[in-house]
Amino acid sequence: MKELGEYPLVARLCERLERIFGIDERVLVGLGDDAAVLEINGIHLVLTIDTQLENAHFRRNWMPAFDLGWKSVAISISDIVAMGGKPVAALLGLGLTGEESVAFVDEFYEGAISLCQSTGILLLGGDTVRSPIGLMVSSVVLGVVEGEPIKRKGAQVGDAIVVTGFVGEAAAGFWLLEKEVSDIASLPTLQRCVEKFRRPTPRTGALQALHSFPVHAAIDISDGLVIDAQRMAAASKVQVVLELAKLPLSESLREAAKVVGKDALTLALTGGEDYELLVAIPSPKADEFCQALKAIGIPAHQIGTVSATHSEGEVLGRNFDGTVSALRGGFQHF
Amino acid sequence: MKELGEYPLVARLCERLERIFGIDERVLVGLGDDAAVLEINGIHLVLTIDTQLENAHFRRNWMPAFDLGWKSVAISISDIVAMGGKPVAALLGLGLTGEESVAFVDEFYEGAISLCQSTGILLLGGDTVRSPIGLMVSSVVLGVVEGEPIKRKGAQVGDAIVVTGFVGEAAAGFWLLEKEVSDIASLPTLQRCVEKFRRPTPRTGALQALHSFPVHAAIDISDGLVIDAQRMAAASKVQVVLELAKLPLSESLREAAKVVGKDALTLALTGGEDYELLVAIPSPKADEFCQALKAIGIPAHQIGTVSATHSEGEVLGRNFDGTVSALRGGFQHF
Repeated sequence: MKELGEYPLVARLCERLERIFGIDERVLVGLGDDAAVLEINGIHLVLTIDTQLENAHFRRNWMPAFDLGWKSVAISISDIVAMGGKPVAALLGLGLTGEESVAFVDEFYEGAISLCQSTGILLLGGDTVRSPIGLMVSSVVLGVVEGEPIKRKGAQVGDAIVVTGFVGEAAAGFWLLEKEVSDIASLPTLQRCVEKFRRPTPRTGALQALHSFPVHAAIDISDGLVIDAQRMAAASKVQVVLELAKLPLSESLREAAKVVGKDALTLALTGGEDYELLVAIPSPKADEFCQALKAIGIPAHQIGTVSATHSEGEVLGRNFDGTVSALRGGFQHF
Repeated sequence: MKELGEYPLVARLCERLERIFGIDERVLVGLGDDAAVLEINGIHLVLTIDTQLENAHFRRNWMPAFDLGWKSVAISISDIVAMGGKPVAALLGLGLTGEESVAFVDEFYEGAISLCQSTGILLLGGDTVRSPIGLMVSSVVLGVVEGEPIKRKGAQVGDAIVVTGFVGEAAAGFWLLEKEVSDIASLPTLQRCVEKFRRPTPRTGALQALHSFPVHAAIDISDGLVIDAQRMAAASKVQVVLELAKLPLSESLREAAKVVGKDALTLALTGGEDYELLVAIPSPKADEFCQALKAIGIPAHQIGTVSATHSEGEVLGRNFDGTVSALRGGFQHF
């Protein structure tokens, strides 16, 4: 596994599965997007799975069971929404070491139920197994796309790049927890970052706008703005230029970054765990799209443009001094 | 977690989720069966998730990557079939420690692809994460039920209990591997048990018979014949009597049991990992049902009857001397 980074590994696997199964006309979107889209009896079903593991994605001592349950479903819903899908139902696979209290399990499901009820989806249950190697959760969400699925592929030269929410806050929250910064609860700005990390809100509210505007491509930001922009750029074979001066860095992010000794801009670009939407939309429509989202309480900002075609996809950053340089980085599992 | 065994824990969870989400008319079968059944736009979709973890379900040193990939999908397909569903597509979530070779990952997917191709289902990909705590696989299978889903609930007094295949072989195979018995490959009877454990074949072939006969209830045997019969009995509120003399104990099981120093009958009753079907069907139809399955290469035997109603469900065994006693045991995660 050290021979290949995660991205090449996944890319190889995608190619292989596409070759074998992608030719089936029921597969509208295969591996290599946020979720798979499948046609069954004329219905476009979206399906995704995500796994979170103790000491890889969270630590038991700072991730409350309620939040773990909430987040597990939230991150899979985010994938469904990024495809333009309406989430319908969730299943959870929970691995417990056996040391957890019954209250822990109850609170875990309380969090998952709470998120499901607030987004109107059904929690159908799942599988509980003994996991001697640590806590783990796999979450599956099934949804329906009415109309065409929105892929990573499809961004065109002349598109604006729009992002929802305030990237970087979740990563700052992670570091506040990981560094065991005390008194977070008494500082609303820091607390906000921690909440963003522990209880992300999937952008189900954005679905109507995603379908009523001529959106060309979308992805949810899970591993970091730059790496996910790179995925969209690669799938669309375009060059994306992000305007660093336009990145919406919140006051909460700036303060939390200071406390954890990290650079706010770096957290915003490469932090990951945002579960925000990155969207490519024709530039003339971008303002109206952002306004439509803001009108329903979803912050949205134009942060870049699709500047050229590019065979492998490329993400550049326009610095504050006007110079342009390649952007790299983000969370990679291997 | 030690306060409650797995079964009460799952039962509590089922009740809770049923109370909240089960009232939704789209939920045809909720948690507490082999898989959930959901109606979307008039289609009955079946969805299941299963998780396998290193050192809980298998050991890295005796589970080849190919077989792990195969089995991960096979056990979820088995759940879909037990609901009378036709499996359509699978997703995998794979957690790797990072120590695995690229060949390991390739072989894992080779096994999963091979099983998917042999059962005609689509492998849509999934999620690959870093799992510092050990290898893990979550498998999701989506299927469609044409007609009514077959539940655990529904067994009636006067039904025959039919089982496919030869229970206990997989458990014997597990012990052959766990005890590192040498020269298995040179002994076809032992090899057969190991194959049953490592590469179970889901009974997709039985689907037509499940729907063309008046089957009242079905469950797949994953945790052991007795515990899964108990689940059917509890859901159906009946008493089941298993005729121990009629259990199909194969020569392979008997030989392997001797080698690992276990009792063949105990392995058959409580071993688990069989992924065979346990079916309740009106007695007058049982012979014809078994013949229909045998005609397509699926061994099937009547091993018991539904003898009475019972408020909590009960499983009895009729011993070789004609006496009857309560049966207990099987694999429980906690």
